[in-house]
Amino acid sequence: MKIGVHKVAMAAPNDVSELAALIAAGTVDPARIVALIGKTEGNGGANDFTRGYATLSYQLLLAPLLGLSPEEVGHRIAFVWSGGTEGVLSPHATVLTRDASTVPPVAGDKRLALGIATTRTILPEEVGTMVQVREVARAVRVALAEAGIADPADVHYVQVKGPLLTPASVAEAEARGRATVTRDPNGSKPYARGATALGVALALGEVAEEALSDAAIARRLDLFSTVASTSAGGELTACEVLLFGNAPAATSDFRIGHAVLRDVIDADAVLAAMDGAGLATGSPGMGRLDAAARSRIAAVFAKAEASPTGRIRGRRNTMLSDADIHYERHARAALGAVIASVTGDPAIFVSGGTEHQCAPGEAPIAAIMRV
Amino acid sequence: MKIGVHKVAMAAPNDVSELAALIAAGTVDPARIVALIGKTEGNGGANDFTRGYATLSYQLLLAPLLGLSPEEVGHRIAFVWSGGTEGVLSPHATVLTRDASTVPPVAGDKRLALGIATTRTILPEEVGTMVQVREVARAVRVALAEAGIADPADVHYVQVKGPLLTPASVAEAEARGRATVTRDPNGSKPYARGATALGVALALGEVAEEALSDAAIARRLDLFSTVASTSAGGELTACEVLLFGNAPAATSDFRIGHAVLRDVIDADAVLAAMDGAGLATGSPGMGRLDAAARSRIAAVFAKAEASPTGRIRGRRNTMLSDADIHYERHARAALGAVIASVTGDPAIFVSGGTEHQCAPGEAPIAAIMRV
Amino acid sequence: MKIGVHKVAMAAPNDVSELAALIAAGTVDPARIVALIGKTEGNGGANDFTRGYATLSYQLLLAPLLGLSPEEVGHRIAFVWSGGTEGVLSPHATVLTRDASTVPPVAGDKRLALGIATTRTILPEEVGTMVQVREVARAVRVALAEAGIADPADVHYVQVKGPLLTPASVAEAEARGRATVTRDPNGSKPYARGATALGVALALGEVAEEALSDAAIARRLDLFSTVASTSAGGELTACEVLLFGNAPAATSDFRIGHAVLRDVIDADAVLAAMDGAGLATGSPGMGRLDAAARSRIAAVFAKAEASPTGRIRGRRNTMLSDADIHYERHARAALGAVIASVTGDPAIFVSGGTEHQCAPGEAPIAAIMRV
Amino acid sequence: MKIGVHKVAMAAPNDVSELAALIAAGTVDPARIVALIGKTEGNGGANDFTRGYATLSYQLLLAPLLGLSPEEVGHRIAFVWSGGTEGVLSPHATVLTRDASTVPPVAGDKRLALGIATTRTILPEEVGTMVQVREVARAVRVALAEAGIADPADVHYVQVKGPLLTPASVAEAEARGRATVTRDPNGSKPYARGATALGVALALGEVAEEALSDAAIARRLDLFSTVASTSAGGELTACEVLLFGNAPAATSDFRIGHAVLRDVIDADAVLAAMDGAGLATGSPGMGRLDAAARSRIAAVFAKAEASPTGRIRGRRNTMLSDADIHYERHARAALGAVIASVTGDPAIFVSGGTEHQCAPGEAPIAAIMRV
Repeated sequence: MKIGVHKVAMAAPNDVSELAALIAAGTVDPARIVALIGKTEGNGGANDFTRGYATLSYQLLLAPLLGLSPEEVGHRIAFVWSGGTEGVLSPHATVLTRDASTVPPVAGDKRLALGIATTRTILPEEVGTMVQVREVARAVRVALAEAGIADPADVHYVQVKGPLLTPASVAEAEARGRATVTRDPNGSKPYARGATALGVALALGEVAEEALSDAAIARRLDLFSTVASTSAGGELTACEVLLFGNAPAATSDFRIGHAVLRDVIDADAVLAAMDGAGLATGSPGMGRLDAAARSRIAAVFAKAEASPTGRIRGRRNTMLSDADIHYERHARAALGAVIASVTGDPAIFVSGGTEHQCAPGEAPIAAIMRV
Repeated sequence: MKIGVHKVAMAAPNDVSELAALIAAGTVDPARIVALIGKTEGNGGANDFTRGYATLSYQLLLAPLLGLSPEEVGHRIAFVWSGGTEGVLSPHATVLTRDASTVPPVAGDKRLALGIATTRTILPEEVGTMVQVREVARAVRVALAEAGIADPADVHYVQVKGPLLTPASVAEAEARGRATVTRDPNGSKPYARGATALGVALALGEVAEEALSDAAIARRLDLFSTVASTSAGGELTACEVLLFGNAPAATSDFRIGHAVLRDVIDADAVLAAMDGAGLATGSPGMGRLDAAARSRIAAVFAKAEASPTGRIRGRRNTMLSDADIHYERHARAALGAVIASVTGDPAIFVSGGTEHQCAPGEAPIAAIMRV
Repeated sequence: MKIGVHKVAMAAPNDVSELAALIAAGTVDPARIVALIGKTEGNGGANDFTRGYATLSYQLLLAPLLGLSPEEVGHRIAFVWSGGTEGVLSPHATVLTRDASTVPPVAGDKRLALGIATTRTILPEEVGTMVQVREVARAVRVALAEAGIADPADVHYVQVKGPLLTPASVAEAEARGRATVTRDPNGSKPYARGATALGVALALGEVAEEALSDAAIARRLDLFSTVASTSAGGELTACEVLLFGNAPAATSDFRIGHAVLRDVIDADAVLAAMDGAGLATGSPGMGRLDAAARSRIAAVFAKAEASPTGRIRGRRNTMLSDADIHYERHARAALGAVIASVTGDPAIFVSGGTEHQCAPGEAPIAAIMRV
Repeated sequence: MKIGVHKVAMAAPNDVSELAALIAAGTVDPARIVALIGKTEGNGGANDFTRGYATLSYQLLLAPLLGLSPEEVGHRIAFVWSGGTEGVLSPHATVLTRDASTVPPVAGDKRLALGIATTRTILPEEVGTMVQVREVARAVRVALAEAGIADPADVHYVQVKGPLLTPASVAEAEARGRATVTRDPNGSKPYARGATALGVALALGEVAEEALSDAAIARRLDLFSTVASTSAGGELTACEVLLFGNAPAATSDFRIGHAVLRDVIDADAVLAAMDGAGLATGSPGMGRLDAAARSRIAAVFAKAEASPTGRIRGRRNTMLSDADIHYERHARAALGAVIASVTGDPAIFVSGGTEHQCAPGEAPIAAIMRV
């Protein structure tokens, strides 16, 4: 397996010109595209339509090239968007291609691999429950196998998109005599994101199945995955898993590493994630990156979170009490700037909402580096 | 001269308890307080009343201690507030005291000095004109003398607050048959901030008087000071100058340095400002700060600015086109996080609006370090 | 009893000049002031400090006039502020004075009366429970007696301010081994506002005590008062009740009436509230108000609410899904404009949060009219 | 000529299902659609992409039905979107069809007519100048003729969309040695909207050509049209004119009227606009609308504006000083609610920006009523 990583800038949510140019130049074969992960310049909230607009725009670009309808493109390629380019964050997409290897792998040299799998439909009454945890865990194991990864320690980033509850889905469940974890659509997000994160943790052995139960979801926050990054959207009915790791059989030009952000100004963790991908600049505390090191960074994916204590490094933080700007926007602005100050590139993926994704207040970060 | 630097956290704009405690403990003598520079948790805009609320609250604390009315406290002590604690920025005030030295200065060892001066009343028709530039320059020279600084290269930070135009002041000028630079109060900010910054630049020899004219103000942005940090408020009628530098006769426990931020993710400039204050960790590119180095940081003052090109490190930035969050808030969130990631302390002073304060897109940063 | 109603405009949260002028002119006797109800130009959220700033400013005005400390003024006079002047809403305060009658009441002519009462301290573990409901009911009965009102049908507006949970109060309760209704401070608002509203409903016979229980609070929204308007703030420990009605013994120059707003564009209810206060312009459907009728309007108090169904008059509404502007701000902007279009005066009191204050989606409105 | 007016609700910017259903039912013939005028649920600012998303979505619906490409649909049908559904405003589109009359007109009974015309390309250096004024005036005269309207008094609403300056267009002009009215893209909006509005005023005889000059545009605000509603967008290069009026030869089931809103709470003007379209309920001051009258309202188009004096009906207004919510959003929230309180329908078109469209602080409103 050989994974390609192509970052394309976007001048607007419907600007697909850079990918079009890569395809025209023969750099990207549209038939090999398996996923797009990107940031759009919306507000990141329920009324952020830049994500849907971007998806539709890329579908319209690719449909004639693949001989498919736009809807079929949506089924074939995983689109993961996070809205909100606060601070210096720059709208872009990371286009991932997957191809068979044309050269034999080098023994002992694990390279970037990507496995993709989808669960069965998760019913509304299953969202945020152990049923969802187990279905996601099953899909993670499928993705693990597809990626050719045997050791869970080789997994560095697992992006999962799944359903949340909507007024319509709650009503549909109740019409069948079924209860949902909550009747509040917004309130279902922590459960939905939390259950999918615990599914990752279960599959990778980060938590024991005995420790898990319906009651633990969105509450026992001491149970978590350090490589899961999950989101929930009203338009989905199944969970889609993108699993990134380093595999012995892969021959990609990239490796991936990860680390845990202690808070949104944890620059050391940014370096540690790259270090884990083979940057080899030394331990945290090492010097700042030079141009050569920076040029090797292909993509950074991170989650940003407000401090649940209302304090960062002992100082009071006002994110959670701000009625004008949502705390996720503050958190993304801060973390995005810190990462960009290290990497020199503001086109990075930073999203919000970290239930069961690292300990409370902490968050995962992963980096894909050119070898 | 001996300058004291005391950072106090604030749990709300009217929380003066930490300064009260420092006074009660004898650490701060209220009679020696000459200035407060701080951040409040408002929106930083025209309808941000947290600044006035904080000023009133400190005036009410100090009035009985000084045997003055609250208004008299306002005349005696300079209050400089910037509203907006975006990202990780934490509400606080840096309280500055000034005292006679009790020990003789060490030859060749320049230490933190502070000079304060005020211009005459600037008439509405003078705001944003060469008259204001020259009056500010005169006040800067007075402050320079008061600080005991002979060499302009020893000046590292000049905070100036001055008037902007209001509907009332425009009407008052017109009633006298005088025209103002603009009739738009909001539109007067760049002129007001720009003219005071050019006053600093003129006094310190950063620009030649011949290069200056009314037409240059807010337009010839290639003319600037690299140590000015200016603001404009409707409540002021004169310009208040706080000049920080290192002076041979000062015996403070602090030194100050400064640098120029190339953009809001320029972590190297943060280190350079401290380096200039004697951190001695090496040149930019040096290692990250250890706990000992961090403990020496007493205060950081910086300006944050959106990129006028709409690009940061070659990537498109959406600050200027965002209709939901003002670009100054994006810029402060980003720069505050980057500085805090270096210093480990989110209680830093970051404000917006940089006309004639460094080149377009660039901004000044100063650091006060314990010796 | 004779109640005075004086509306004063405010040019900023700390502008107390109009009340100062009324006092200087002898129009208002500061010793007779019992309450201020007003709007300030903040965001209405947790980080809205304009309310505290306004309170402090009026306390500083009145303290020397009353020979009290600012704190003592706060204990003597009830301050009720709602932050947020969206749309056309204009910052102002309605100052209420209470005096003994100097003329005998006219038989059968009920006039504006005001009773004020405070509960004992409500412990954190009591917030949002039946204990609070009963304590508020007791205080409402005290206020009813003080106002000289025998018939609950003569009560038209009951403003109640009470405590919400804070991180500190939750911790304090838990340290004593007590559980609170929720550990989430923001999440405690519906319980706190709801329990006080049910206390009003209980005292006025709008709901039967048997129908009430801890489980009903913030859940059984079919139980409500149509005259309660409640708010919750972290700075309070007891509930303060301001009860407005028409009493036989009152000789005020005013009467009060109320109605139920079906939604935020229910102009008929605005007219009905005035009608109830003796406007006598006919039933809903009557003509628009002429200048004479408008000049009789002394004050309007209303609550604004988003439609829980997401629809208004059958059309989809986007308030609840807007991540940029809080739905309470949308609702206040809409209702404030509709009321002002009827009354011709944008200085009206419109606040948000209506748990158990009318049926879901509906809200109370009261009008004080000159006789 | 027979004009059809079909209001379709939208559950999201890409929801075209109601128009699809009208087409499927045979109610709307896609070949007869000439324009869509609607509101989308964005923020109405430069980063509001809901307008483009909605246009693309309708183009994709109509392209296969018309045998055209999506781009060709854009050239054939005029799309006019205003972003921002503040307060109660509800996302929707009013679809306008135009057909030959199948029955002879009744003498003396003027009915709804619609003329559409486009100017030549307006060069960047012409934007906001007399060249643009004259080109728009010429297009208005073409539209007038197309609508079959001889008397300008029969024109009640002229919607014009035209170009604004962008960084690219300014640069392009300067490369050719041409200067633009301003180099600031945002600052070009008043010029662009103002010049198109003056073009309407010139064509309809509302201002004399002698009174106009480049210097008057966006400055001589005493010159205006009372029926123009103009907008400017970076994606346009020519001006598109939609002229609505009542024509003797038209046999539509509708009539149109208009009025001038004195401010955003001017409910009388809402009634007057309908009155002008033949509602016949009496003069301003007439009673509120009954269900029968409301059912005749087909569409309302209005502009909302902040008061330039900062006062509405003598009360201070805080729209212009609010740094959190743009004043256009406040104004739309207020006016939209007032109109909906009269019409009973929140699906109305309210947009912002009124340079030379009525006197400062005033704004146009038009209503299309079923006969």
